Formats: sequence, C-alpha cells, structure tokens
Amino acid sequence: MTASEFTSRLDAQVAFLKEADRLKSILRATPLIDGSRKENSAEHSWHVMLYALVLADQAGPEVRIDRVIRMLLLHDIVEIDAGDHPIHGNVDHAAQEAAEAAAADRLFGLLPDDQRDGFRALWDEFEAAETPDAVFAKAIDRFQSPVTNLAGNGLGWRGYDVTLEKLDARVGRPISRGAPGLWAWLRPKLAAFLGQPG
Amino acid sequence: MTASEFTSRLDAQVAFLKEADRLKSILRATPLIDGSRKENSAEHSWHVMLYALVLADQAGPEVRIDRVIRMLLLHDIVEIDAGDHPIHGNVDHAAQEAAEAAAADRLFGLLPDDQRDGFRALWDEFEAAETPDAVFAKAIDRFQSPVTNLAGNGLGWRGYDVTLEKLDARVGRPISRGAPGLWAWLRPKLAAFLGQPG
Ligand SMILES: [Ca+2]
Repeated sequence: MTASEFTSRLDAQVAFLKEADRLKSILRATPLIDGSRKENSAEHSWHVMLYALVLADQAGPEVRIDRVIRMLLLHDIVEIDAGDHPIHGNVDHAAQEAAEAAAADRLFGLLPDDQRDGFRALWDEFEAAETPDAVFAKAIDRFQSPVTNLAGNGLGWRGYDVTLEKLDARVGRPISRGAPGLWAWLRPKLAAFLGQPG
Repeated sequence: MTASEFTSRLDAQVAFLKEADRLKSILRATPLIDGSRKENSAEHSWHVMLYALVLADQAGPEVRIDRVIRMLLLHDIVEIDAGDHPIHGNVDHAAQEAAEAAAADRLFGLLPDDQRDGFRALWDEFEAAETPDAVFAKAIDRFQSPVTNLAGNGLGWRGYDVTLEKLDARVGRPISRGAPGLWAWLRPKLAAFLGQPG
C-alpha cells in the first residue's frame, strides 16, 4: 500500500467510526434497570456482548463465541438509518427489512471495500439466523430485555399488551432455539411475574 | 453439574449482568459528536470495540484482535464503583488504582469462580499494558476520544487546559506505542486544530 492509499483507507475507516457515534442516540423500548431513562442501541450492543461472553457455556460446542461477539458488535448499526422496532410493537416487516438493507448498504459502504463486504456478510448471517453462531447470537440478543424488564419490575412492558403467550412466541422461540437452558431458567420467572400459569 | 449447581451458576452470572447495567449511568468527560450529551462508559466500550475491529490492520501481526475486543468489553466495568477519571483532569493515581482494584474484586466476584478469575486476569493484563494485545487495546481506547473531540469541534476539551504538549504525553504516547500509524495520522490534525506548530 502506498502512503496515500494508507491514508485514504484510514480516512474511510474513521468516517465510518464517526457515523457509528449516532447509534448512541437510537432509543429502545426497554428502560435501564433503575428506570432512569430508555436504553440506547449502542450501550445495548455492549451489554449483549457481555451477556454472550458470560453465558458462553450455554452455547453448543460448535459455537465460536468470538464470532458471536463480532456479530453482536455490528448487529444494530443499521438502526442509525432504520430505527429500532420494539418486538412487542406492530411493524410492517417487509418495509422494515428493506429499510435495514438500505441502511446496511449506506453504512457499511462507508468502509473500505474488503471491510464493507466482511461486515455485511456477518450482519447478513446474523439476520438469517441459520448458522449456530447466528442462532446463539439471536438467543442472547432476545434474552437481555426480559431479564432487564423483570429486574425493573416490568416498567419496559407498560404500554404494551404483554402476555406469556406473546413472550413464548417472540422471545421464547428464539431463546430456546439457541440457548434452551436460558429459556428453561427464564420462563418460570416470567410466568410468576405475569401471574399466569407457567 | 447437577441441576441445582447449574441454576446457581446461572443465578450468579445474571446477577453480574444486571449489576453491569449501571455502567450505562457512568458519564465520561467526552460528549457525543453531536454535542447533545456526555458519553457514558457502556456505549464508549461498544464504540472502542468497533474501533478495534475496524482498525485491526493497524495492529502488529502478534496481536489477537478477538482478545483485544474481550479486553475492551471488560475494561471499564470497574468504573461502576470507582467512577471515570478524565485523562485531562488531575487525579490521585494511587487512590484511583486502589479503588479500581476493590471494584474489580467486588464486581468480578459476583461471577462463578472460574469466570471471576478469567475476567480479572484479562482486566489485569489490560491495566498492566505490557502484552501486545493490551498495548494495542490501550492505544485504541485512547484514540477514540480525540477523534470524537475533533469531530465535535473541541467541545469535550473546553474547561480543560488542553495543549499539544499534554496530548503528546497523555494520548500520543499510548497511541504511538500500540498503533503508530494512528498517531501519525492524528497528530497533524490535533496540531492544526489547536493552532500549534506540529
Ligand atoms: Ca476507556
């Protein structure tokens, strides 16, 4: 690489990293445990990476936890353009998928080509939720919010019509697919909190 | 592992993960690029992990980037008890180190013993800044704030007496030790912004 190629590569990388700062202003439905404010998608990303590292022993032997952490590092960056869509809200899934694909084009497109393609492939793999790494990453991503909501006395569920049946479908299915031990641990706590027979 | 050992292991892991939520309320001196508010240490941790992944080609061949990312994932957790200390402020370093060691004891101590010891060893390695992984992690951790401050027109430097000489010592030394290419790129921009001969 010449000095000028080196400099333009770094210019592009830093442009992407500066744009990524905006993920700190994308708010999610889930509040912090202390109820002081809503969680943003950047700190959420940090927290689910910590969940993945701590709960790595819940993954099958074929899961490579460092790839899972990389997926979770990148997984919400598209929200800078496409916003966050609460799982208990109603959303036009096709429109949301199109918006996220356009966001991935623009945002990863700020990077040098090799990194654009590598990051996009990892994000596509996460979204497709087919490989063991992606299935575990999705399970972890879904596990953090109900744990937070239980710890915060259900504050994040207010305003949504949350039932055990809905949690089984929207949270239980992806968690039990990638980390069945976590769902076995969580579900009785959800049932008790919601006052519904587990 | 028996079912009850499995459950108490998971109880301990989730207790740690819930306590970690408080890192989202530890504020740093650096504002977001848009100046809307100060950055917190959880979203900062996410951002420096992204810096490490994107700028991995600035590391020497002996650096294992996934270990760097794990270090950065854990590096600020002690601030939950010990607070953040701006590099341009004045601080009693011995008292700060003692407070951080006590914080590491308490916080990592929430985890099962094997994870407590593994996380503590990784955090100790980062703090000691001697291994290639730790030296690169420190360089990346120091690179993000001046990039943010330049992009935000120096907002984060107001109220501190920031000079190129101080930046050379507090930022330039750790960055150039772990990632000399980043410092060669950054220093002329800092000199131009501060209006000082580079
Ligand atoms: Ca830091």
